[in-house]
Amino acid sequence: MKKPFADILTAIQPIKESFLAQAQARLDNLTKPVGSLGQVEDLAKRYAAIVENLKPKLGGKNIYTFAADHGVVTEGVSAYPKEVTFQMVYNFLQQGAGINVLARHAGARIVVVDIGVDHDFSPAAGLVIRKIGRGTRNMAQGPAMSVPEALRALEVGLEMADHAREEGATLVGTGDMGIGNTTASSAILASLTGLPISQITHRGTGIDDSGLRRKIQAIERALKINAPDPKSPLDVLAKVGGFEIAGIAGLILGCAFHRIPVVVDGFISTAGAMIAAAFNPFVKGYLFASHQSVEKGHRFMWEYLGQKPILNLSLRLGEGTGAALAMLIIEGAVKILTEMATFGEAGVSGKSA
Amino acid sequence: MKKPFADILTAIQPIKESFLAQAQARLDNLTKPVGSLGQVEDLAKRYAAIVENLKPKLGGKNIYTFAADHGVVTEGVSAYPKEVTFQMVYNFLQQGAGINVLARHAGARIVVVDIGVDHDFSPAAGLVIRKIGRGTRNMAQGPAMSVPEALRALEVGLEMADHAREEGATLVGTGDMGIGNTTASSAILASLTGLPISQITHRGTGIDDSGLRRKIQAIERALKINAPDPKSPLDVLAKVGGFEIAGIAGLILGCAFHRIPVVVDGFISTAGAMIAAAFNPFVKGYLFASHQSVEKGHRFMWEYLGQKPILNLSLRLGEGTGAALAMLIIEGAVKILTEMATFGEAGVSGKSA
Repeated sequence: MKKPFADILTAIQPIKESFLAQAQARLDNLTKPVGSLGQVEDLAKRYAAIVENLKPKLGGKNIYTFAADHGVVTEGVSAYPKEVTFQMVYNFLQQGAGINVLARHAGARIVVVDIGVDHDFSPAAGLVIRKIGRGTRNMAQGPAMSVPEALRALEVGLEMADHAREEGATLVGTGDMGIGNTTASSAILASLTGLPISQITHRGTGIDDSGLRRKIQAIERALKINAPDPKSPLDVLAKVGGFEIAGIAGLILGCAFHRIPVVVDGFISTAGAMIAAAFNPFVKGYLFASHQSVEKGHRFMWEYLGQKPILNLSLRLGEGTGAALAMLIIEGAVKILTEMATFGEAGVSGKSA
Repeated sequence: MKKPFADILTAIQPIKESFLAQAQARLDNLTKPVGSLGQVEDLAKRYAAIVENLKPKLGGKNIYTFAADHGVVTEGVSAYPKEVTFQMVYNFLQQGAGINVLARHAGARIVVVDIGVDHDFSPAAGLVIRKIGRGTRNMAQGPAMSVPEALRALEVGLEMADHAREEGATLVGTGDMGIGNTTASSAILASLTGLPISQITHRGTGIDDSGLRRKIQAIERALKINAPDPKSPLDVLAKVGGFEIAGIAGLILGCAFHRIPVVVDGFISTAGAMIAAAFNPFVKGYLFASHQSVEKGHRFMWEYLGQKPILNLSLRLGEGTGAALAMLIIEGAVKILTEMATFGEAGVSGKSA
């Protein structure tokens, strides 16, 4: 299946209210006080609505970790040198990173996608090479990428959604690696919402006060020079985004198209989800908010997407680590819907009077 | 091993700072920005300190769900009839309840302990019968139990901790079942802290406004008639507690004694943890706060225990359901400590400058 991007965009439909209502009816009849599993019930019913099945079967889980470099790092916006991006890709392939540990723990498979790292990788198991460029250009001096580059990066994400579908994955996670990518993510957030840059820009991997000032100034210059059109997610993505953010946005759009529930990781992934939702707001129904990051702009992203994060563990690592942990909660929720006994089945009395 | 209760109490020591520091040093050297896994790192280092091992091996997980009845239900404090307690025990044994689903999902074994249900169970797999009585007496008219009964119930909990140790469990969860037990838990919280009863008493399984008024009045009468001594956890437990709460308190004390990390479930379990911590404050170091319940008094309990809940999913089911889900996060945290690569091992550059 290879559909044009525009066709995917228009094909995404809202999740069906009827499935939400039927799932809630079943949840209300299970042997527990009505509503007593709180947000777990919300996860369960939305999962059922996405897959349009009140007894969904859980299969494999895939996490796609998109890696890319960012021209804006020359502005001194990150606590880590640029080469950490490619070094961490090797760490992923050698199973030594946080995402490896937590994905293994969650029983998820990781697919690492080189969508724009400034390094030549040899083919390796678990690595998909779809390089759009050797990093973006410096958005503080002009557009980070061209519109055709942005579209190609989005299509890489769509391709990964197709991959997930071909593999029969029943839950997909997003992930990122890219030194400098909290800068791009903050710029996207500011562009799409108009929120003040200083209010939504934070320390990323741990930059100091003077670095934070440089980061804010770089974003201010990027928005001034490029003047991204808040009405056009493609314009915003190309001018102040990143290749991995585009890949994540494409993955989310593709998952919504295929009706595969997709767990959005942290700040960078959620920037991708904002782009996806700006293309088609119906995608909001297909995604799960893994966690609330320490990065202070993150809560504005979840508000934009109308999501309540599942976890709040002060994470700020990215890679897909929050998505991996949240997958465990979501799958537990689905099992509540499909495996718990009803009052009638168990012979338990209902509420008094 | 069968030690007298008093010997267990005095044998519990604080967890060792040196292990916390060594675990943090390792965490800081792993391939991630320092501190970027937030609360996950806190869980990992405390687990290591409890078991006094920087490379802990994860084994089996046991959840002990203590079931008992409460005399105070005759005051009309619960939305459900009393027989739901024994009916739910059968549901546990038939694997149909929320805790069955979530424990299975988490790979944990459930042990159901009849510590005071008003029903005669036949022996069954997964059921331990250690009945102290057929429910407590009505605390609104006098002590819920005698001091010897309270001590015997605590010792049932200690026995379950011994059981966990004999089975080699590396993580233990607490759970409860007992119509009326949020009333007893609120009474314990009020007794130990002096907080206003109306501020910490909530709807339990979902009682209506008039039921909530009856519940508050029942607790007021119980505290007035019994005048539990806030300095004596045994006095508080006997006068306004419950058999299952005593069992949970004993389990937690026993786990601290054996240095087995113990995950405390919701409102009722946390009342048990408060009793345990009032006996010996060092137990606080051995427990993990599974989640923040909807029950409005719960946050005061975590404050008393100095704990930050792992999950905040608006749960209010009990049984051990929150503990089961939190176990998945704790085990992920331990694996971060033991399975992630260091910067040196992975050949990744550290922070700039």
